[in-house]
Amino acid sequence: MSSQPLSAHNFKQLFHSVEAFLFDCDGVIWKGDELIEGVSQTLQMLRSNGKKLVFVTNNSSKSRAQYALKFQSLGIPVSQDEIFSSSFAAAMYLKVNNFPPQNKVYVIGGEGILEELQLAGFTGVGGPGDANKTIDFKQNKFFEHDKSVGAVVVGLDPNINYYKLQYGTLCIRENPGCLFIATNRDSVGNMTSLQEWPGAGCMVAAICGSTQKEPIVVGKPSTFMMDFLLKKFNVSCSKMCMVGDRLDTDILFGQNAGCKTLLVFSGVTTQSALEDPSNNIQPDYYTSKISDILDLTEA
Amino acid sequence: MSSQPLSAHNFKQLFHSVEAFLFDCDGVIWKGDELIEGVSQTLQMLRSNGKKLVFVTNNSSKSRAQYALKFQSLGIPVSQDEIFSSSFAAAMYLKVNNFPPQNKVYVIGGEGILEELQLAGFTGVGGPGDANKTIDFKQNKFFEHDKSVGAVVVGLDPNINYYKLQYGTLCIRENPGCLFIATNRDSVGNMTSLQEWPGAGCMVAAICGSTQKEPIVVGKPSTFMMDFLLKKFNVSCSKMCMVGDRLDTDILFGQNAGCKTLLVFSGVTTQSALEDPSNNIQPDYYTSKISDILDLTEA
Repeated sequence: MSSQPLSAHNFKQLFHSVEAFLFDCDGVIWKGDELIEGVSQTLQMLRSNGKKLVFVTNNSSKSRAQYALKFQSLGIPVSQDEIFSSSFAAAMYLKVNNFPPQNKVYVIGGEGILEELQLAGFTGVGGPGDANKTIDFKQNKFFEHDKSVGAVVVGLDPNINYYKLQYGTLCIRENPGCLFIATNRDSVGNMTSLQEWPGAGCMVAAICGSTQKEPIVVGKPSTFMMDFLLKKFNVSCSKMCMVGDRLDTDILFGQNAGCKTLLVFSGVTTQSALEDPSNNIQPDYYTSKISDILDLTEA
Repeated sequence: MSSQPLSAHNFKQLFHSVEAFLFDCDGVIWKGDELIEGVSQTLQMLRSNGKKLVFVTNNSSKSRAQYALKFQSLGIPVSQDEIFSSSFAAAMYLKVNNFPPQNKVYVIGGEGILEELQLAGFTGVGGPGDANKTIDFKQNKFFEHDKSVGAVVVGLDPNINYYKLQYGTLCIRENPGCLFIATNRDSVGNMTSLQEWPGAGCMVAAICGSTQKEPIVVGKPSTFMMDFLLKKFNVSCSKMCMVGDRLDTDILFGQNAGCKTLLVFSGVTTQSALEDPSNNIQPDYYTSKISDILDLTEA
């Protein structure tokens, strides 16, 4: 089925049939550290109409607590419970799969993953602390790695280096049963408001390349987080609308979970990419940015 | 057809039917900086029997001149003309495809690639010079890249970092017609004699992950180099034997080119990996190390 542009008419239907709006953050709420135009008023309007708001982000650089602070600093009141980040998802994946707490977790990625691991009772190693580590290629060196690492979590890592790639690769190749978990596989992302930069998909692919293994993906489009979300908000998926800027993560996630889907063009996807014959992911609706909702309700 | 262990009988046949032996280097001739046992005498014996020797390596860290020096330092006389490295292959690919010399080539990899590019008349940028460059994620920064870069060459890079991944990604995504060339896609390699470390396949996969594009591979198992080799040595492929330690590069390369193939277990492949039901690449022959040839000819 092809997508429809959001209109006063179909938005009215959507608005009345949906109890919860799920929002991606980067490219929907903000770009880098800049709020996208009209976001604050739009979220206010939805809340004042009794809609539940949930923020589902693949960005693993922050923990839920750090995201709540970011929302606050941008003048948007959001509670930690309304935030589902892929850093939290990685920790929850280990939790529900009874990962032994005495085993360590090697992290290629940011502080947010380490923080969520700690909150869930796990010991994360690596992460930003390995940013400046190097490997000496000049000698016939043996690289020691911790045999008690039972999982490697890979997310976006601005400090990626050979040491981290080597460490993660050795754990996955040599520690029996070691899990390979990807927060997400976004190829690029809006780390700034001006450009698309390599995303977690870049680091995850590197580890796939060296280990010849495929990861367990816990962020979008995987619906792993949906069970937590359903338990917390008590709304059926058919009464949710997933709003995002990415076809292969946000919209696919919404579709995989049985939600309504709304694509916005304020992030990485353009209208011509949506309409390109090579694209086979069609959201229910599309519009330029979420604040279009305001104009449509006032119309 | 399943592989045969090399024996006095079948080696005699192979020896008489073959005019040139093509050797992989890492895991066949040396491991890291250590010569594998018996290599020197084996190569001497082959040369004294009039066999042509060719060294075909996916390792792009050195140029052919640098490889000739390495052979020399290990006490093995090898001329630069007998060496075909993937660094040379990358430069030759640009040459035969009439890459405009006024365009630049961005290099994720070692000095060897830059040196071969220069010898072929091209301007390489990046490489080891970008080892310590960083990107500021804190501000809404615009990352400038050179619009005259017409090709990105990716090989093994011990100094891989986000800056390089970002630079290469922007060139491939934003410079019209920019080529994405991989020296090779080896997942791991014997950078030391003690362990397998992530290979060029790791860095190449990272760029595939961020660009969602597949590279042109110029090293093994691609037979791109075969035309150069045939021209230089004037031996038909059926009279060549490719000797290597990797199924998915060396043996596949030999088979793709129509050579005889000999797998040795002195590098990354074990006999159990060869015999594993999941493996579908079968060399003609296998043996533990190349010096077994000496014992077999003396037998």
